[in-house]
Amino acid sequence: MSLNRRDFIGALAGATAVTSLTACGDKESASPQTLAPMETVEWKMVTTWPKNFPGLGTGANRVAELINTMSGGRMNVKVYGAGEMVSAFEVFDAVSRGNAQLGHAGAYYWKGKIPAAPFFSSVPFGLTASEMNSWLYHGGGLELWEEAYAPFNLIPNPAGNAGTQMGGWFNKEIESLADLKGLKMRIPGLGGEVFERAGGLPVSLPGGEIFPSMQSGALDATEWVGPYNDLAFGIYKAAKYYYTPGWHEPGTSMECMINAEAFYALPEDLQSIVRNAMKVVTLEMMSEYTAQNQRALQTLVDEHGVELRHFPDSVLKELKVLSAEVVEELAASNELAGRVWASQKAFTQQVTRWTNVSEYAYMRARNL
Amino acid sequence: MSLNRRDFIGALAGATAVTSLTACGDKESASPQTLAPMETVEWKMVTTWPKNFPGLGTGANRVAELINTMSGGRMNVKVYGAGEMVSAFEVFDAVSRGNAQLGHAGAYYWKGKIPAAPFFSSVPFGLTASEMNSWLYHGGGLELWEEAYAPFNLIPNPAGNAGTQMGGWFNKEIESLADLKGLKMRIPGLGGEVFERAGGLPVSLPGGEIFPSMQSGALDATEWVGPYNDLAFGIYKAAKYYYTPGWHEPGTSMECMINAEAFYALPEDLQSIVRNAMKVVTLEMMSEYTAQNQRALQTLVDEHGVELRHFPDSVLKELKVLSAEVVEELAASNELAGRVWASQKAFTQQVTRWTNVSEYAYMRARNL
Repeated sequence: MSLNRRDFIGALAGATAVTSLTACGDKESASPQTLAPMETVEWKMVTTWPKNFPGLGTGANRVAELINTMSGGRMNVKVYGAGEMVSAFEVFDAVSRGNAQLGHAGAYYWKGKIPAAPFFSSVPFGLTASEMNSWLYHGGGLELWEEAYAPFNLIPNPAGNAGTQMGGWFNKEIESLADLKGLKMRIPGLGGEVFERAGGLPVSLPGGEIFPSMQSGALDATEWVGPYNDLAFGIYKAAKYYYTPGWHEPGTSMECMINAEAFYALPEDLQSIVRNAMKVVTLEMMSEYTAQNQRALQTLVDEHGVELRHFPDSVLKELKVLSAEVVEELAASNELAGRVWASQKAFTQQVTRWTNVSEYAYMRARNL
Repeated sequence: MSLNRRDFIGALAGATAVTSLTACGDKESASPQTLAPMETVEWKMVTTWPKNFPGLGTGANRVAELINTMSGGRMNVKVYGAGEMVSAFEVFDAVSRGNAQLGHAGAYYWKGKIPAAPFFSSVPFGLTASEMNSWLYHGGGLELWEEAYAPFNLIPNPAGNAGTQMGGWFNKEIESLADLKGLKMRIPGLGGEVFERAGGLPVSLPGGEIFPSMQSGALDATEWVGPYNDLAFGIYKAAKYYYTPGWHEPGTSMECMINAEAFYALPEDLQSIVRNAMKVVTLEMMSEYTAQNQRALQTLVDEHGVELRHFPDSVLKELKVLSAEVVEELAASNELAGRVWASQKAFTQQVTRWTNVSEYAYMRARNL
């Protein structure tokens, strides 16, 4: 299916139009033929997160709330948690088909349909949150993402970023790459592929199953998000060492995809409100995660006695080599993935030079 | 003057209401007594930047553009560059009095009126851009800022962040603090006070006078913003060494103040649009500066042969001690400044611990 902008101008495909005249006075006493009725556009948002999941689920709620408020009630977006309308991994198809108009998720979930998709969420040893936003908005990233989603009748948007993750929870110290061998660890996506290449056994598990699996010993290790979400799951009760840095997800961008017909049926002001609500949530989520992670880190270390550990440089160097292999193979597997990686790789090399001179040099100086 | 929310509900103080019925059909044929006319709220934004100044002036333009677009033309914000309606340093008073409804600036400009003001822009050896947003939105910072501006009939908002600045342009190498002694350097604000305590002669100069003053030798050194803006001014033609890091402004937050009466006269949807336009611009400006700075850095070093230098650790350590003195004296000078610094200082200590474990540890690992 190819996307033609002109095809979308017209009826509110996939949206229910409810006549409402509140903003234009009393319907009863106004002469109906001279008034363009104000329509409430009813939209559904499906998400890959449990309803109200702190940070990610509440970020999805916030996109809806912002659209509803900024539109003055001309739009009404209702949010469905994973499993309420469709399961987590059916979000993409539901929005593509127009059963829902919005879908809040992470692009890496769609690698099976679109090999390039993980490049739009996070890449091992890749871009930080601010750098990822910069590539997407000013480095050609969003245009490539739009190209990747267009055949599915979807418009992609960044909508939140959880920042640099932690490296994960372990019950033994990691002194060399050999210590990862045979370890059953919950680590999905490209990071999981790298971990497998290092001799580990990556497992994909939904968040809710992580803690029981760590307690029972079905898992030896796990990563999840960072202190804020990890503390809430109680993982510290089942693991002793909390490793940094999160080399596998240095700045994971969340997404809010829009059904293209539904979007182009909106007037320009509502289109702008929908798009900008997502930018607001990106800023808010970054700010919230920074604040909540620092508080939770303090609780984990100072109250629960969690031991922070840094992966040894030798381990990080080897993981970096393996990561490059995994990413280059993905890029070589598909024409679009190759172009996306070429763009992101060049941007990463250039922006790292700037980050090293600016934020990294500053953070180092502040610690002196 | 104290601020009472209920006082503001009522007439559109300071705004011109223009009757326009485009969104509700034809005025001629509708019965006028039954229709609430759609009003175009005409607002003025004054700024401390030259009109269209890249990054900062264009960020102000973008706030206006977003408000105009998201409101579907119900609001029309017109932007005035410094000197067009009022001079740069009259922005605060113009918005306070309601001559303009919005003012885009940097809070550090208002230290003479509000001793706490610099804490809301940037503090030497303080918060980075993401950390500053986190303190403002999730660490109590914005509430304190609102308290500081309320007596002036103003509502403050973060609206843009230029990120970590560079340390400045020099024609001699800085090997010890003694090398700063007697140096005439353009460096304003708290950074300038620290520089003076280190034996330097800080000078305040508008941007446009920096390059000629460097060429004529009236200035020995200067900082401005970062590669993007510094390249545009051509400063590299008059200085050999480009120093990092920008210890004096690690993540300068811009502001967009709102006249309180004008704001509370808006309906809830337009209030939300105005506030959120500013959050969008914060995200966009961070993304833009990251992208443009990395490109400009490359041009400066690879094409113009600029020599990058890091301040020696010994110099940074001494500047950090002097910075703490300057900031603590400011905090001790005024009750509100004391409370603001107590809040920001505690947040800085906690969040630095998290940044060191997450982004800083990651950036270090990426360089291995």
